[in-house]
Amino acid sequence: MVKTKMALSAYTQLEQKFARQSALSGAMAMLHWDSAVIMPDGGSAARAEQLATLGVLAHDLLTNPAVGDLLDKAEADCADLDDWQRANLQEMWNSWRHATAVDADLVEAHSHATSACEMKWRAAREDNDFASLVPSLEEVVSLTRQIADAKSDAFNVSPYDALLDQYEPGCVSATIDALFDDLGAFLPGFLQDVLEHQKSRPDLILPEGPFAIEIQKQVGHDFMTALGFDFDHGRLDISHHPFTGGIPDDVRLTTRYVTEDFTQSLMGTLHETGHALYEQGLPAKWRSQPVGLARGMALHESQSLLVEMQLSRGHDFLSYALPKMKLAYKGDGPAWEIENLQRLYLNVKPDMIRVDADEVTYPLHVILRYRLEKALFAGDLAIADLPGAWNDQMQNLLGITPPNDSMGCLQDIHWPSGAIGYFPTYTMGALGAAQIFQAAFEGVEKLQAQIRDGNFSELVNWLRKNIHEAGSSKSTNEILQSATGHPLHTEAFKAHLKARYLPT
Amino acid sequence: MVKTKMALSAYTQLEQKFARQSALSGAMAMLHWDSAVIMPDGGSAARAEQLATLGVLAHDLLTNPAVGDLLDKAEADCADLDDWQRANLQEMWNSWRHATAVDADLVEAHSHATSACEMKWRAAREDNDFASLVPSLEEVVSLTRQIADAKSDAFNVSPYDALLDQYEPGCVSATIDALFDDLGAFLPGFLQDVLEHQKSRPDLILPEGPFAIEIQKQVGHDFMTALGFDFDHGRLDISHHPFTGGIPDDVRLTTRYVTEDFTQSLMGTLHETGHALYEQGLPAKWRSQPVGLARGMALHESQSLLVEMQLSRGHDFLSYALPKMKLAYKGDGPAWEIENLQRLYLNVKPDMIRVDADEVTYPLHVILRYRLEKALFAGDLAIADLPGAWNDQMQNLLGITPPNDSMGCLQDIHWPSGAIGYFPTYTMGALGAAQIFQAAFEGVEKLQAQIRDGNFSELVNWLRKNIHEAGSSKSTNEILQSATGHPLHTEAFKAHLKARYLPT
Repeated sequence: MVKTKMALSAYTQLEQKFARQSALSGAMAMLHWDSAVIMPDGGSAARAEQLATLGVLAHDLLTNPAVGDLLDKAEADCADLDDWQRANLQEMWNSWRHATAVDADLVEAHSHATSACEMKWRAAREDNDFASLVPSLEEVVSLTRQIADAKSDAFNVSPYDALLDQYEPGCVSATIDALFDDLGAFLPGFLQDVLEHQKSRPDLILPEGPFAIEIQKQVGHDFMTALGFDFDHGRLDISHHPFTGGIPDDVRLTTRYVTEDFTQSLMGTLHETGHALYEQGLPAKWRSQPVGLARGMALHESQSLLVEMQLSRGHDFLSYALPKMKLAYKGDGPAWEIENLQRLYLNVKPDMIRVDADEVTYPLHVILRYRLEKALFAGDLAIADLPGAWNDQMQNLLGITPPNDSMGCLQDIHWPSGAIGYFPTYTMGALGAAQIFQAAFEGVEKLQAQIRDGNFSELVNWLRKNIHEAGSSKSTNEILQSATGHPLHTEAFKAHLKARYLPT
Repeated sequence: MVKTKMALSAYTQLEQKFARQSALSGAMAMLHWDSAVIMPDGGSAARAEQLATLGVLAHDLLTNPAVGDLLDKAEADCADLDDWQRANLQEMWNSWRHATAVDADLVEAHSHATSACEMKWRAAREDNDFASLVPSLEEVVSLTRQIADAKSDAFNVSPYDALLDQYEPGCVSATIDALFDDLGAFLPGFLQDVLEHQKSRPDLILPEGPFAIEIQKQVGHDFMTALGFDFDHGRLDISHHPFTGGIPDDVRLTTRYVTEDFTQSLMGTLHETGHALYEQGLPAKWRSQPVGLARGMALHESQSLLVEMQLSRGHDFLSYALPKMKLAYKGDGPAWEIENLQRLYLNVKPDMIRVDADEVTYPLHVILRYRLEKALFAGDLAIADLPGAWNDQMQNLLGITPPNDSMGCLQDIHWPSGAIGYFPTYTMGALGAAQIFQAAFEGVEKLQAQIRDGNFSELVNWLRKNIHEAGSSKSTNEILQSATGHPLHTEAFKAHLKARYLPT
């Protein structure tokens, strides 16, 4: 055995180690899916042990001193590598730096603090009692800051940017500042114009249910198939919070069904289908290597929002989809007119809850969180002062004030779970979706007609070729530059909103 | 971290290592279940990688030299341990000896050979072409013998007994020889008597289907609940081959449904429920330790056969169950008379296929395989001569000759998959089931009336107390001795067969 290993290059040995790492994280992804979809409640303690054990083993694999030595050797010999191998080596370095930057004790303390804080948060949201969350959230923010400081040294970026890098590798807050300042200046005024414009439209009519779950499931399945989801490498199931899990060879997509409203589940399914197509489209040759992974959360969200927001809520898609929905649900009458359904899909309404927000107000929810988490992180805002700051920003950006903290600063699990630096990727995804969809129209001839015909293969092929198959071989902005001619910007998104919500 | 570990006793450190081992094998059990029940075909290659990786990590954990040192130290200090801890230490030794006895290269060669042979076997059975299997099966038997030789040295038993120990710890072939010689002398003559007796009974009438799968599922679910299966710690699903998987805290039971015959699925579900009750009844305190595992395959099979054969095919259970089945399936008429249904359940017919065999002929199938695998293993029978030897034994034991090898020596996957030494546990389980059920009638007052009332709680509690909760703290025969007053014997089984099939 040893002899064989000696003969392998450092790079090849690394590939073997990272393949093992990939198998472990694949196993963990499956067990996570099972926990959310299948597992009886009584299995949760044993499942937590399984996941913790696999997590420790995965961490041990990566932080073993041999890996650092191999990385150095492979780096020295990197002239022997082709472009993909070199990019893979970069991604290995990045994983290794994240894993080794932080002391194991700190990781463990952070993990315990976030578990405890999530529990506190559930109770605090339930009881509308922000004060009860304060000590626990202070602990999480403090430990997250220690992690950020450690990673800041290792990556030579600011602490907040080191956190961003966990979700969107290479992204720095200066870039986000520019994008969000632009959006923050545009959206509040635009929102008022849209609300004014909506006043003159006919009343919305809700299609009347109930809509049998079996039929909703079949409709979702049919649209997924039409969009190119490969059911030989994935499934559609039910969970309380829809998500896309599993691995690229076996993508586990979930949704939930409400019998009174089929659109919620349908749009949820289409959103997750965008995520799933990205996973299924990742480069097959690099499945077990870091370079074969999705580029980051911003690009991931761009694919889900492209399918849900850009494509599925559009008039062309609806022309194709509506007859199928009417047939499935035996829908008839004014509620089922295409113009009414589209008004329902595109209804804009400033409201308290981010996850229910429409396309126009959603970025304002994100900008609010981005500004506050940066202020918290910099020590410019005390945790105890969060509710007031939250409500001020809501008033400034959306013109509304939450009636209580449960509908305000207590609504999201992200901060209690230590996910600082995650929120901006939602809106970066929305920007990317608009930019990419616009470019697809330039890249695919007669795309509009194809969509109206329910033919999505050229669109999906274009996405595969220009986005999915790049894996992590290039940065998000390099992928966008090459697919759309520009790094991430706000123009396409703003143009999209204007065309859709203020048609002339 | 190191300081804390120094303060822990060797035994406690071992408990920690085996808890990690348990979490790993639990994760593997879940992924196996997922492969059989949930996974789309396209996920199989990635799943194989996940399982192989977890298997290697589990093996590495156990064979790490530190484990041997800790075992020695804990052994030296075993005066400090209580009975369960000492039994746990014994089980740790046993796992460690199995893992370390065999060179990693041999394990890998065996694993590849059995994978290849299983593929060959599928084709050979399909094509009724035993000759095509010979080289591959010779390879598997040869490598299995090498493993047996290595374990023979480590355990100081014969090579075949070393294999038995993998499935039924501590069992030796001298014990099985005595049991099977007795059965082999009794059953063929008894079988002829039963067949003669059956001639005088009325014709069998099959209840007419179809039986909707949804209803079959509900009926199975209801009987499982009545028997005490805890659905907060387990599930009922569908797979091609019914099995009981998962872990004690989350038992994943499967069955399959045939719309024309509800009894197949029902009896399959009840059989697996016996296995599942054993798992759910294992000592809660020792869940993550070797001593908390089921004792062995013989006792496991005794629990499934107790529920399926002893309990569920009996007249008392049927008195309780029949009204429920008639109600569920709207059954009426002579096919649904209790005496007809019991004749169907207890129909004896010598036939080619083991898995379809009745309670009387099943042990003869097992005795045949036991004799042949011992002869193969001892080198007294060449693989190429297996078909002739098989057919001779079938004629001797069951009075029939398979029309071809697919229905003869090609029917089972066990030998191609390297599972030599497994078959005897099926019939040891049947013996144990009869012995334990008889003892339960002595231990539980008015059990017959309870069964007729569908009240199984005292029976299951008796099983928990006398069988399940022992875990692996005692040997199979110690458990049987204490529960039934005897080590494993044939008398209860023979008495059961006589009473059931030749009533006077």
